[in-house]
Amino acid sequence: MYKIAFLAGDGIGPEVMAEAKKVLKTVEKKFGFKFDFHEGLVGGAAIDAYGVPLPESTVKLCEDCDAILFGAVGGQKWDALSSQLRPEKAILGLRKHFGLYANLRPAILFPPLVSASPIKQEIIGNLDLLIVRELTGGLYFGTPKGREETGGVVRAFDTMIYTEEEIKRVAHIAFKAAQNRKKRVTSVDKANVLATSRLWREVVERIAKEYPDVELSHMYVDNCSMQLVVNPGQFDVILTENTFGDILSDESAVLTGSIGMLPSASLGDKKPYLYEPTHGSAPDIAGTGRANPIACILSAAMMLEYSFGASEASNAVKQAVTRALDEGYRTSDIKTGAGKVVSTTEMGDVIVNFI
Amino acid sequence: MYKIAFLAGDGIGPEVMAEAKKVLKTVEKKFGFKFDFHEGLVGGAAIDAYGVPLPESTVKLCEDCDAILFGAVGGQKWDALSSQLRPEKAILGLRKHFGLYANLRPAILFPPLVSASPIKQEIIGNLDLLIVRELTGGLYFGTPKGREETGGVVRAFDTMIYTEEEIKRVAHIAFKAAQNRKKRVTSVDKANVLATSRLWREVVERIAKEYPDVELSHMYVDNCSMQLVVNPGQFDVILTENTFGDILSDESAVLTGSIGMLPSASLGDKKPYLYEPTHGSAPDIAGTGRANPIACILSAAMMLEYSFGASEASNAVKQAVTRALDEGYRTSDIKTGAGKVVSTTEMGDVIVNFI
Ligand SMILES: CC(C)[C@H](C(=O)O)[C@@H](O)C(=O)O
Ligand SMILES: CC(C)[C@H](C(=O)O)[C@@H](O)C(=O)O
Repeated sequence: MYKIAFLAGDGIGPEVMAEAKKVLKTVEKKFGFKFDFHEGLVGGAAIDAYGVPLPESTVKLCEDCDAILFGAVGGQKWDALSSQLRPEKAILGLRKHFGLYANLRPAILFPPLVSASPIKQEIIGNLDLLIVRELTGGLYFGTPKGREETGGVVRAFDTMIYTEEEIKRVAHIAFKAAQNRKKRVTSVDKANVLATSRLWREVVERIAKEYPDVELSHMYVDNCSMQLVVNPGQFDVILTENTFGDILSDESAVLTGSIGMLPSASLGDKKPYLYEPTHGSAPDIAGTGRANPIACILSAAMMLEYSFGASEASNAVKQAVTRALDEGYRTSDIKTGAGKVVSTTEMGDVIVNFI
Repeated sequence: MYKIAFLAGDGIGPEVMAEAKKVLKTVEKKFGFKFDFHEGLVGGAAIDAYGVPLPESTVKLCEDCDAILFGAVGGQKWDALSSQLRPEKAILGLRKHFGLYANLRPAILFPPLVSASPIKQEIIGNLDLLIVRELTGGLYFGTPKGREETGGVVRAFDTMIYTEEEIKRVAHIAFKAAQNRKKRVTSVDKANVLATSRLWREVVERIAKEYPDVELSHMYVDNCSMQLVVNPGQFDVILTENTFGDILSDESAVLTGSIGMLPSASLGDKKPYLYEPTHGSAPDIAGTGRANPIACILSAAMMLEYSFGASEASNAVKQAVTRALDEGYRTSDIKTGAGKVVSTTEMGDVIVNFI
């Protein structure tokens, strides 16, 4: 019996989450699990109800659960709010509160969707890379952070800061992931300019010694943003700090042409971990039945694997998704090789059938 | 009479700089200028001679000049040196010393080279964007920066810091550049997370009011790294801070498929400004006659425009480059539509002939 915190959020969040739930219900039956869903408010929905994007009650609910499945948050309605009250604060708050320091972002090319990639087919190859992004350190959380006025001069500042320990723990996750893949880690930094990058490089090199079967290389972040476009096939696991990872993981995602289909996992040292689709809340298509539930369903598959150790069930979900695509089922965001254009719920049904 | 500091540097630096000089000598004759070239050591070459990448004598020489033309620095030979002595320090040192706060990086698609782009032709369109990167602030220069150990915990830190004034002056450059282009500025930040970005956004909005003919929009940096790949044609001028600009300008450059051909200008409030090709020193092909001199020649063209106000001469150089490409001349780095594969010096000669 596993307890799942079910945070649907805003926009298309609730729609894609409903399909992930359907999939998990099927997994219950087929694989003999029992999942208990605990719904909590988050993002704009929580702002409307409680005035804050991440209410204490939602945090409590998550503390009580084995894993968190997160939809999407945000929308124009809340755009004008001051930054402390923005829907995104919910996701930052959850990461920090639960110590979710490692963000796993696979960028996979689904073979029937190759032609959806903006990159030429001969370059994109069969892209399959994993970005491991440090998620609770660096610029986003470092202090001092703020604004001050002294002698008539207004200045604002953020702090990029990393301890040895913060680098170590995320590096271990990257090397372990590489052991189950092509056994290559590219650590991305800006060690020619940043002090944090120099410590990063040093620590990563030290950790690498514990994984002699994994090959480590280093790359500057500016070069990496180029290499992802010209030769993405060279990468297996990319390990990088928070801000660089934010930028590079989105760049990688878009190379696949399937941003609506990519999942993510945010891991820490203890449960609950958090799983969320990498797409946003897409308020423009909310309620039209056009949202693609695959990213959310694959996030649930990552949950099965990383939180519940249920690799077999996880693979069954992934294979069902692949089969749905192979057989030509497409939500309307995918413009490629469409046989049958289906709605959000129909796509969920097709995948459920194939499990 | 203009004095040009001529800093060739390492690797292919001297080779491409020799071609830029040939071009400038031709401009002298055709357009009635007089250029005085003052050669200075920089990068690895300066380390070998003086033990430092940016000797005082080179700084003095530049102070005495109207503009700086810079080749490229770096190479394996100096890779093991401690960071204060690395060849790259020369370029950071020049930027800081001369207050070169605005880095202009055009990303242009040369029509005969469209097929060299890694991006599909229907997406790349006729890309022509300009990145204006803040170059002397933010993470790269902010203090405190360093490493410390307290209570057994090792930590490293860098500071992203911007004053209102630093944002204002680079914003003016972006808006002015947009007035001569398609009149659109996209300001890129991470205002949902960073205090510096919130100040950035506020100040840019204020400056925008002085340019009512220019349309301003804002974009998060992670989204921008995606939009550059899926729809680069939407951009005219991208204005952003130092680190984001470092990453996004390299990503943009590679979209064109012509990284060996893109110039850059670094401007400040007073001369000398600095001009350099955006490619590196490519030690692997140094001395083989295979380097592409076009990025350096176009950097000289930017110098004619921005430092000497010589738009006519600048355009003549740009048109000569375009004609060389149109007529099928290619250095061996360009794998596309090659009619005549020529060496570095031959490419220089062809361009000189077309001026
Ligand atoms: C919403 C935002 C704070 C967040 C981030 O940058 O971490 C998002 O872009 C992401 O990548 O998950
Ligand atoms: C060499 C390095 C410090 C430099 C930078 O990042 O500014 C380079 O990458 C550039 O973009 O000019």
